[in-house]
Amino acid sequence: MSEISFRNVEETDMEEVSSLLNQLKKIDLNKIDYKEAWSNFISNTGSNSIVGVYNKKIVAYGSIVVENKIRGEVAGHIEDIVVDTGVRGKMLGVKLVKELVEIGKNLGCYRITLFCEKKLIKFYERNGFKVNNVIMKKYLN
Amino acid sequence: MSEISFRNVEETDMEEVSSLLNQLKKIDLNKIDYKEAWSNFISNTGSNSIVGVYNKKIVAYGSIVVENKIRGEVAGHIEDIVVDTGVRGKMLGVKLVKELVEIGKNLGCYRITLFCEKKLIKFYERNGFKVNNVIMKKYLN
Repeated sequence: MSEISFRNVEETDMEEVSSLLNQLKKIDLNKIDYKEAWSNFISNTGSNSIVGVYNKKIVAYGSIVVENKIRGEVAGHIEDIVVDTGVRGKMLGVKLVKELVEIGKNLGCYRITLFCEKKLIKFYERNGFKVNNVIMKKYLN
Repeated sequence: MSEISFRNVEETDMEEVSSLLNQLKKIDLNKIDYKEAWSNFISNTGSNSIVGVYNKKIVAYGSIVVENKIRGEVAGHIEDIVVDTGVRGKMLGVKLVKELVEIGKNLGCYRITLFCEKKLIKFYERNGFKVNNVIMKKYLN
């Protein structure tokens, strides 16, 4: 049986990762200026993003944004978790989250937050997360 | 009647802001290495933090963390909103959030998220936020 392996995302992964993220939120991939998007993306010094490779294909992606707070605390925010629908049920998502939590630990986070739909609560509980408060969202025009 | 004014946080505000944040989450202020905390804090290139000044005193603090996503989208996360208990009821919190939303707009955010306790939902709804999904949290040791 193949094993999933994780590594930092690279510029050459962009198209593959972008279409994988379309399983999470569909956008028009033709409208992406990959060069500009990559340059802005890597300017996020506090953001760490990884891909999961399984059978030589990128099947998973996720980020952890690390924030240094004014009083010295370090907080982590997990973002954009996606696992290819073709490889679900192999616990790859659990491994992906575990990997991001490790990155957060190594960067000194005292806590990690993420937001998810209600149907995913059980999945994240398996990773040691607990429901906490309410997330509110505002779309800007 | 005095008006609140907002400006970027500066290093000399650190002690005042730190004790204001103790109204939100109490930590031992004597344990903060302000020099080191400030240097890590300003390394957050995507983080914008402001103070609200009212009657020459810092009475409000809040941050917006701006994240450039791999496909070029820009997301904002509002963090650490606090208004001095001594000046509540003057709509200063609403003005603070409005100010952070404006910063997010100017930086190109397509959406802004924040998490809050259930009792604060009404307050944020007044600012145009809607409840969305669930926030989960994991504390690291």
